[in-house]
Amino acid sequence: MKWITAEDLENIAIGATLLGTGGGGDPFVGKLMALQAIQKYGPVKVLTVDELDDKALVMPVGSIGAPSVSNEKIASEEEVYAPAEVLKDFFPERTQAIMPIEIGGGNSLLPIACAAKMGLPIVDADAMGRAFPESQMVTFFLKGYQPEIVAMADSQGNRIVYYPKDGEWSEKIARAITDVMGGNANMVDNVFSGKIVKECGIRGTLSLAKEIGEELTILNDSVPPVQRLLDHLNGFSLFEGKISHIERNVEGGFTRGRAAFTGINRNKGEELEILFQNELLLAKKDGAVLASTPDLICALDYETGRPITTETLRYGARIHVIALPCDQKWRTKKGLEVAGPKYFGYEVDYQPVEELMGEKAHV
Amino acid sequence: MKWITAEDLENIAIGATLLGTGGGGDPFVGKLMALQAIQKYGPVKVLTVDELDDKALVMPVGSIGAPSVSNEKIASEEEVYAPAEVLKDFFPERTQAIMPIEIGGGNSLLPIACAAKMGLPIVDADAMGRAFPESQMVTFFLKGYQPEIVAMADSQGNRIVYYPKDGEWSEKIARAITDVMGGNANMVDNVFSGKIVKECGIRGTLSLAKEIGEELTILNDSVPPVQRLLDHLNGFSLFEGKISHIERNVEGGFTRGRAAFTGINRNKGEELEILFQNELLLAKKDGAVLASTPDLICALDYETGRPITTETLRYGARIHVIALPCDQKWRTKKGLEVAGPKYFGYEVDYQPVEELMGEKAHV
Repeated sequence: MKWITAEDLENIAIGATLLGTGGGGDPFVGKLMALQAIQKYGPVKVLTVDELDDKALVMPVGSIGAPSVSNEKIASEEEVYAPAEVLKDFFPERTQAIMPIEIGGGNSLLPIACAAKMGLPIVDADAMGRAFPESQMVTFFLKGYQPEIVAMADSQGNRIVYYPKDGEWSEKIARAITDVMGGNANMVDNVFSGKIVKECGIRGTLSLAKEIGEELTILNDSVPPVQRLLDHLNGFSLFEGKISHIERNVEGGFTRGRAAFTGINRNKGEELEILFQNELLLAKKDGAVLASTPDLICALDYETGRPITTETLRYGARIHVIALPCDQKWRTKKGLEVAGPKYFGYEVDYQPVEELMGEKAHV
Repeated sequence: MKWITAEDLENIAIGATLLGTGGGGDPFVGKLMALQAIQKYGPVKVLTVDELDDKALVMPVGSIGAPSVSNEKIASEEEVYAPAEVLKDFFPERTQAIMPIEIGGGNSLLPIACAAKMGLPIVDADAMGRAFPESQMVTFFLKGYQPEIVAMADSQGNRIVYYPKDGEWSEKIARAITDVMGGNANMVDNVFSGKIVKECGIRGTLSLAKEIGEELTILNDSVPPVQRLLDHLNGFSLFEGKISHIERNVEGGFTRGRAAFTGINRNKGEELEILFQNELLLAKKDGAVLASTPDLICALDYETGRPITTETLRYGARIHVIALPCDQKWRTKKGLEVAGPKYFGYEVDYQPVEELMGEKAHV
């Protein structure tokens, strides 16, 4: 992918929603913003990580907060662009490209809008290889790189630049600001050099999102789209069921909750429970863990195979739950400390989804 | 006062604690910081408001948060200087002087430390003529001037610069940041030109603080010090009593509470109640209002006449409560909207203390 054009946005939105495991903000709103920006300013040039200058800076763009809020309080154009524009003034000569901070829903599309508006290329990479709810859950942090400068903006016109002590403080401050800004805000953090992005970035994730979108939307094929997807991504089908219970709480700048599923087809008579904090984080069947963060748990519409955001899970919906292995960077000791199940308060020892599924297959 | 030397600090601390109506942070800690800075960097030149260049910038320095926190978690030197130093880098050519944002306890002394460290003069003025708990309660705001850029710092090493939409948003953001920073932080806001400081500043308040300190500490005089003070400041003696009850809550970055007093001497058999939010805001005798914000309510030690901070009011202490008229700028419609009793949730119509005391005199 050399350029992102208006025609690519739908597929990127679908793929990013899947990779975002339900989080990352509303893909539909993000798509409209990216579409509007591309129509106005033209297509966006895509750089591979290897094309970055070692010394140039990359600005990762994203929204932060509770998707339950941003889905109703849609970001203004100004608010989306402001953090990158404010920071660009700090480094006018060095800014080479925009990057999505995460691959997930709207957060993969807002950076495209931002790049179009600012006349900058976008890097085909992100800092999670999925979406995560907290801002220190990035591969930069795993390697010990801490954000030195962060910019945030809201729909009111407030603009904030801060120099956090470290990544955890950056998250604490960002969350407090998000809360006072009404539960959702836009930010640029983890501004690093091309050299560091080469070391830490998870490569090709925008292209991967687009491919997933293509795979799920090609209709005339002998293999069902979800199966094609699982083959391509080494994924696993976890459960087919109907949502029998759903609860969400917006607290501290997050949407937290749980969804329960009653099995259909091959899972008839079984129960699945998924716990989430913006993203789907833990899946248990009849009490046994099937998959957990940092591996990806994705909810697909049973009929169409289209991924569903945490916000749009609703009572009665028929869902195909699948899981994908996360990037190896998350399976290190540090990676699991930062984004493993225990960090979120789940008393579960992480096991890779391949192992968990392998065990199931052998039972 | 042309210079502030080490010898002036004790008197300024006493006077500022009185004018701060109990708030503004610990004067003792502030005095030690100013002393250390003056010993290290030399005395601080004092400018009158009229000596400011119209186009130069003045940086008002202060701490924000719950005094209950800052009294125990004493600010680091670095944290006190950081906000002004960060902002000076934004306006290297234009910064002419430091100013206390309020006259109150430590908040009159930290700016002296800051000026000494930065080699800048201090302006003999402030933006309240007393202390108030919220950051939009400044005379700049009354005239429609809103902070355009604010800097904050904490003891962890976090530094924040923000561009608020307006003064109310500035306070909301500052308070959220203060909360996440642990309940207390240091800031520079309301950076304005000399011209605007000439229009809005309350003049001569550092000198006045020093004079009050002198008046309360001269011992060999026929008139008692408190009486001398009331004569000098057109003040009123409200009540003499013992504290029979005191409660404080640290919430949302403030110390809120109430103190009850049982009368002694001429007030024997009477009860006084004072409500506070960092500062003493409302005094009622047997249910009738004696004085209310924005007029100044001050608690003095009954024996020595020394002013007492809200934090050091304690059960059993014998106190002389006095009141002083506030600056006329606070008695306008806008002034009362911003800092009158109703703003703080007290269902009381503001009446100037002179009128309330005049009525009492006629009963």
